[in-house]
Amino acid sequence: MNITNQAKCVIKKRFVRLAHKSTLNPTIKHHLAKSEPGELIEARGFVKSVRKSKNIGFLDLADGTTSEDLKVVFQTKEQPKLRVGQTVAVNGEWAESKGKGQTRELRCNPQEPQHSYRIIGDVEEDYPLQKKSTSMQFLRTLPALKHRTSTIASFYRLRSFLETQMIDFFNINDFTKVTPPIITSSDCEGAGETFKIAESANFFEKTTYLTVSTQLHIEALAMALNRVWTLTPCFRAENSNTTRHLCEFWMLEAEISHVEDLEQLLNFTEDMIKYSTRKLIDLKKEYLRGVYLEEELVQSRWAAITKQEKWPRMTYTDAIEYLNKLRKDSEEKLEFGDSLLLEHEKYLAKDGPIFITDYPAEMKPFYMLKSAKFDPEKPTVACYDLLFPDFGELAGGSLREHNYEELVESMGKHGMDVEEMDWYTTLRKNGTIPHGGFGMGWERFVTYLSGHDNVKDVIPFPRAPGLCRA
Amino acid sequence: MNITNQAKCVIKKRFVRLAHKSTLNPTIKHHLAKSEPGELIEARGFVKSVRKSKNIGFLDLADGTTSEDLKVVFQTKEQPKLRVGQTVAVNGEWAESKGKGQTRELRCNPQEPQHSYRIIGDVEEDYPLQKKSTSMQFLRTLPALKHRTSTIASFYRLRSFLETQMIDFFNINDFTKVTPPIITSSDCEGAGETFKIAESANFFEKTTYLTVSTQLHIEALAMALNRVWTLTPCFRAENSNTTRHLCEFWMLEAEISHVEDLEQLLNFTEDMIKYSTRKLIDLKKEYLRGVYLEEELVQSRWAAITKQEKWPRMTYTDAIEYLNKLRKDSEEKLEFGDSLLLEHEKYLAKDGPIFITDYPAEMKPFYMLKSAKFDPEKPTVACYDLLFPDFGELAGGSLREHNYEELVESMGKHGMDVEEMDWYTTLRKNGTIPHGGFGMGWERFVTYLSGHDNVKDVIPFPRAPGLCRA
Repeated sequence: MNITNQAKCVIKKRFVRLAHKSTLNPTIKHHLAKSEPGELIEARGFVKSVRKSKNIGFLDLADGTTSEDLKVVFQTKEQPKLRVGQTVAVNGEWAESKGKGQTRELRCNPQEPQHSYRIIGDVEEDYPLQKKSTSMQFLRTLPALKHRTSTIASFYRLRSFLETQMIDFFNINDFTKVTPPIITSSDCEGAGETFKIAESANFFEKTTYLTVSTQLHIEALAMALNRVWTLTPCFRAENSNTTRHLCEFWMLEAEISHVEDLEQLLNFTEDMIKYSTRKLIDLKKEYLRGVYLEEELVQSRWAAITKQEKWPRMTYTDAIEYLNKLRKDSEEKLEFGDSLLLEHEKYLAKDGPIFITDYPAEMKPFYMLKSAKFDPEKPTVACYDLLFPDFGELAGGSLREHNYEELVESMGKHGMDVEEMDWYTTLRKNGTIPHGGFGMGWERFVTYLSGHDNVKDVIPFPRAPGLCRA
Repeated sequence: MNITNQAKCVIKKRFVRLAHKSTLNPTIKHHLAKSEPGELIEARGFVKSVRKSKNIGFLDLADGTTSEDLKVVFQTKEQPKLRVGQTVAVNGEWAESKGKGQTRELRCNPQEPQHSYRIIGDVEEDYPLQKKSTSMQFLRTLPALKHRTSTIASFYRLRSFLETQMIDFFNINDFTKVTPPIITSSDCEGAGETFKIAESANFFEKTTYLTVSTQLHIEALAMALNRVWTLTPCFRAENSNTTRHLCEFWMLEAEISHVEDLEQLLNFTEDMIKYSTRKLIDLKKEYLRGVYLEEELVQSRWAAITKQEKWPRMTYTDAIEYLNKLRKDSEEKLEFGDSLLLEHEKYLAKDGPIFITDYPAEMKPFYMLKSAKFDPEKPTVACYDLLFPDFGELAGGSLREHNYEELVESMGKHGMDVEEMDWYTTLRKNGTIPHGGFGMGWERFVTYLSGHDNVKDVIPFPRAPGLCRA
C-alpha cells in the first residue's frame, strides 16, 4: 500500500476523530470492545435471561448497542432474584471468561467491596418478551416494546449502519446530501394516490400533498450542485397491504449531472449497492448474531450481490421474449406494453440482481429520455428497474429528458399542466445538462440484507392501510 | 500519538474506504484536488464569468461540488462566445497557473489536438443570475434557479457536511440512527398547530397528523437501543412568518438512556455542537469562500462556540433575577412563570452560547422530570433551553419522567387522554430507565454556522404560511 502524504494527513484526521472521548457512560458495546480484564466496571442493561445453580448465577444483559449480550456471573450463594425484562445495573470486575463462546464476563460478588447490583426498572408479571423466541406476528401487537427483541433491534442497527455506509459512499463520489420538501404542490408521477394536507387551501393558498418522490425537486438541485442524493420519507396512499409496501417509507434518491449513457447509471447503482454490502460482509458477525433467520439464507443474499463481477443487463423487449420462450404453446404470450408481474420479476432475478432496461415509453412517467436505440414502432425510454431475488423491484432509474421542447411535448402527451410546472421546465432553458437518477426503497434494501421478508418490521412504527399504531 | 494495533486496523480500513474509485466522471472538486499538471482533462460546469483580452480569454467554471471555481484560459485569438449560465465542456491541459490567488488552470487552445470546448446547455437572454451579486430577496423568487448561486450552494454543502459530522459523532458515542414516523396519531406537545392528513379517517381509521416532534417515539426506541438519534422532518402549522420559523423543518433529536443528571445532558449537547464546529473550522477555507457575508462575522460565530472551555449554565430563576437587576425601578419586573422573550434570550447569549435550565413546570410539556432541587412553592423541571447569540433558542432538552405514577399524574394535570397514550406509559412499567434527550432545529444550526440570518435560505424549498413554491 503506497501511502501518499495527503492520505497520511487524512488518516491522521480519522484517527483524531476516532479518539474523541464520549461524555456519556460506557455502553455494553464499549465494555465488550474496550474494557480491560481487572477493571472494576458498571454495566447497565435489561435482563435477557437468568440461570441459577448452587453457588453461582448467570445473567445475560443487553442494552441494544450491540447484538452481543454481556455475561454476568454472580459468585454468591444467595442468588439475586432477577426477572427477564428488568433494567439493572451491575458493578463488578471485568474478567477473562471460562465459559464457551465468550471471552470476557462481569464477575459480581456482592460481599466484595464495590461489587453490587440493583434493579433500576422493574417489570410487570405479564412482561410479554420472555426468553423463548416470539413470532413476528405477536411482536407487531407491541408497538412500544417489540424494539427490545434481538431480531428487531438488529434490523435497526443494520439500517443505521447502512446509512453510514451511504454517507461515506456519496461523499467519496462528491455528492451533496440535500433535503427536498415533503409538502409539495407538484405531484411527481402525475398520478393519484397521494395524501393531502387538510389545511392546504387556508395555509398555503393551494392544494398540497405529501411527496411521492423527490425526484423533480432534486433534479433542480443537481443542476446546481452537480450530484445530489437524499434519504427521506415518501408517501403513497395505496391501498395495498403486502409485505413489500408501506404508505410511509424512506427512499434513497440520487440525481447526477453529465450522465449521458444509461450504462453509467447502472454501473453507479451497482457500485453503491456492492460498496455497502461489502462493508456489511466485513462486519458480518455483528449483524448475523441475534438475527432469528438462518445464517445461510442471510449470507446467500449477501453473496448474490457480490459474487458477480457485473450484474446482467437485459432490455424489457428481450425479457418479454425470454419469458415467452418458457411458456407452453397453449399459454398466452406477453406482448410489448404488458407489465412484468412480480412472478416474472422474481424469475428474472432468480440467480441474482438483474437490470431490466428500456421499458415501453407509455408505461413510464413523462420525464424519461428516449432510449439510445429508439424504435418509433416500439417506443422505449432509457430507464431501468433493478430486480432482486425474492423481492422483485428494489430500485428504478432513468436518464431524464433535458431538451425543453421534447419535455414539454411529453408533458402534453401525459396530460400534464405545463404552466403549473414552469419552475421545472425552466431548468431546460437555462444551462440544461444531460442527467439521470434513480430511487431505491430503503426498507426493501434493509429487509433484503437483513434476511427478512417483510418491510413492515424494519421501520419502527409502520404505516399502512388501517395501520397507524402510536 | 500512540497508535495501538486496533487503531492501525481502523485506519487501514479508512484508507481503503478513501481509495474507492468512482464510476462517474471527475468533478471540478476532483480536478482541483487531484488532477496533475500536464494531464489532458475535460471539465464540465456552468459559466460563472467571462473576460476577454487581445489573444487570451478567461472563463470561471463552477459545477457546485466545491466553492472554488475552475479557471479556464483560452489561448487563442478567436475567443469563444460564451455567456454566463451556459453549461459547457472544456477539454485542454491542466497546468500550473500564473494567475494570482490560484495554483492551477485549464489551458485550452482549440488549434491543438484534443483541445476543444462546446456548449452543452444554452441560456435565455434574460438569464437572471448574472455575475453581479444578487439580493436574497430577489433569489427567493427563483425557486428552481437560485440554487446555482455561490452563496446558496454553499449553504447546502455546509448542511451536508454537518450531517456527515453528526453521523460520525453519534457513531463514536454508540448511538443508533432511527426513523420515527412522520404520520402519527400521538401529538407530542399536547398542543394544537398540527397539519392533519385529509384521508386519515378512511385510510387509517383515526385522525392522523404530521409529527411536530419525534420525541415520544424515539423514547420507546431508546428504551430498546440505549441511545438513538434522528434527523427528520417535523411540521408545525404555526402562522408565524419570521426569519427563524419554517412550517416544514428538520430536527435533530436524541434520546439517551441512563442519564440521571441534567448536567450530563448539557455536556453531551455541548460536545456535539463543539465537535461539528471544530470539524468545520478545520475546513474553513472551503466554507468561507463564496459566502457573501463578511468573513469576520462567520468566524466570530464559530469562535463563540469553541472559545470557552465550558459554556455558562444559569437557572431560569437566576436568569429572571439577573434580567430584573438591569431594569429601571419604573419598569415592570419579570416574575416566576413569565416567558423569556427573544430580546431576553439574545441578551443572555450576547457573549456566546448559554444554557438556561430548570424552567417552571407549568411552562413545559407533561413528560419532564422534576428538577433535582425541587421547590414545591416554585415547581420547576429538569430541562434546558440552549440560547445562541443573535438567535435565541437553538436546542432544548430535558430529563424525562420515568416513573409510571408520576407520569400519569402529570398527564392528568395537562389534560391528556391517558388511555390513548397507553403505548407510551407502558414503557414506564416494563424495565423503565432514567433518560433524557433534546431536539435541535437543524436549519437554525446551519444558518448560525453559515453566518446568515434567515432559516428560509438554508433549506432548498422552504414552506411557510402562504409559501409553497414548486
